[in-house]
Amino acid sequence: MNHIELNILGCGSATPTAWRYPASQILNVRGNLFMIDAGEGVQQQFRKFGLRFNRLKQIFISHLHGDHCLGLFGLLSTLSMLGRTDELIIHAHGDLEALMRPVFNYFSRDMPFPVTINPLLPWKNELIYEDKAIKIYTIPLKHSVPTCGFLFEEKRCLPHIVKEIIDFYQIPVREIASIKSGADFVTSSGETVPNHRLTTPAAKPVRYAYCSDTAYTEKIIPIIEGIDLLYHEATFLHRDYARAKETSHSSSKQAAEIARKAGVKRLLIGHYSARYSESTPLLNEARSIFPETVAAYEGLKMKIG
Amino acid sequence: MNHIELNILGCGSATPTAWRYPASQILNVRGNLFMIDAGEGVQQQFRKFGLRFNRLKQIFISHLHGDHCLGLFGLLSTLSMLGRTDELIIHAHGDLEALMRPVFNYFSRDMPFPVTINPLLPWKNELIYEDKAIKIYTIPLKHSVPTCGFLFEEKRCLPHIVKEIIDFYQIPVREIASIKSGADFVTSSGETVPNHRLTTPAAKPVRYAYCSDTAYTEKIIPIIEGIDLLYHEATFLHRDYARAKETSHSSSKQAAEIARKAGVKRLLIGHYSARYSESTPLLNEARSIFPETVAAYEGLKMKIG
Repeated sequence: MNHIELNILGCGSATPTAWRYPASQILNVRGNLFMIDAGEGVQQQFRKFGLRFNRLKQIFISHLHGDHCLGLFGLLSTLSMLGRTDELIIHAHGDLEALMRPVFNYFSRDMPFPVTINPLLPWKNELIYEDKAIKIYTIPLKHSVPTCGFLFEEKRCLPHIVKEIIDFYQIPVREIASIKSGADFVTSSGETVPNHRLTTPAAKPVRYAYCSDTAYTEKIIPIIEGIDLLYHEATFLHRDYARAKETSHSSSKQAAEIARKAGVKRLLIGHYSARYSESTPLLNEARSIFPETVAAYEGLKMKIG
Repeated sequence: MNHIELNILGCGSATPTAWRYPASQILNVRGNLFMIDAGEGVQQQFRKFGLRFNRLKQIFISHLHGDHCLGLFGLLSTLSMLGRTDELIIHAHGDLEALMRPVFNYFSRDMPFPVTINPLLPWKNELIYEDKAIKIYTIPLKHSVPTCGFLFEEKRCLPHIVKEIIDFYQIPVREIASIKSGADFVTSSGETVPNHRLTTPAAKPVRYAYCSDTAYTEKIIPIIEGIDLLYHEATFLHRDYARAKETSHSSSKQAAEIARKAGVKRLLIGHYSARYSESTPLLNEARSIFPETVAAYEGLKMKIG
């Protein structure tokens, strides 16, 4: 069973529309929630889609444009009111510290939990977080301000125990850890039960990359090669490429070209310009190059892998 | 014809819910939009309800709790992107300047319009704005931080011209201004046409007061006596009065008592606690004391007067 699920909270871009929310996603890794970008209204979306504030573990901010981080103020104020005590780590450009901490402190007086801001080096592809389930790396992107994406790389799970066989041989609990690590089992009568009868392999670990905001850049391809799901911004239709270039964004066609060249399994597009009232033309443009494309929308949940 | 209309953009309180927005209203005074409080998501609501950003004239912030002002960041950033050039005046507690201006400047680089912050003295009942259509006064409120409400007092319009009579006597355009000011008209044959035949009186000027957030305080009664519409917060049902007292808020019953004692024409309640999934019980509680009560909801438009 795979436990990695992506929730789209917002997939609009800078100019507001009546119904779209600015950038924010939640990656649910075996029950721990990782927030990727935090546009205005993220706390409302969080609640709307039934996510639990006490499961929020860390926040990853790609860059300091308002549509990617202005929801932090309300979110932190609410976490304070709800009495969070766990440390909250925000990975973001170093400017966030001086710019936002005074506001966090003002609107969350007596904040009951520590907020640690981990300054990113957006020009580097480096490991920034690791726990027993996942490794998270930065991906340098090409935008009008220092920006990085994030690669989430699941660690391999231990194999699953075959309960019927364990019961049949009455294998004691103390043996389970070594069996999960690959050991055979020897019965009291000296019979060897090989490990492959005692276990079934765990699901293959998955990889997800978030690439927004960015102009077309093939430099990211070696980092995202063959991954299970790529989110790549597709702010414009290719007919509006002049505007994409001017603002350091990508067209939907370019997102699809990156997906094809990197050989990823699936592509998810988003960060749509407010000029498009619906995403279908952007989706069609991408699918003509990379058929395994999905268009993000607020409320979308996707199992990865 | 009366041109004052109130638009409710948000009437929730501090804790977010899936569908309510935090405090924000727009008072449309003869085409000029005055924003009262600016909770998170206000720019999205502004667009959702078909309001025009270029009509936004001034912003009035009652107090510096996040649910009343965290929408300013996104709003100002969007006004910059839309190329606003008109000065924007924000009336708010003086702390806003040091706290928010660095963030405004960061997210709206090369802001094309000046932002002037007018520091309020929330303990005073004083005139803070006046133009040819309206006067706006502060109303000292009783809350956990310095807070004031706002009284909007329309100025009397000039009377309307009776076009048929003007045409009948072929009165020249240059006479219209003095007729509007009360003059009679004398024809070339010496006949006097009295002013009351040439004009009909303008609508009675209206008054609207916004009182949020506040505990019950009768000190506001002399300021709001007899007004056309009172918005008064009703965060809690009276059965939860202990919580209202603790947080310096009002119960719905208390809002109605203020309305009754001040002899206002209509009461509008809002700022509902997230604990109530709908506003009907709060409305019923207020109506049992003050029948002319309306419950605010996102998207409500009310003509005043």
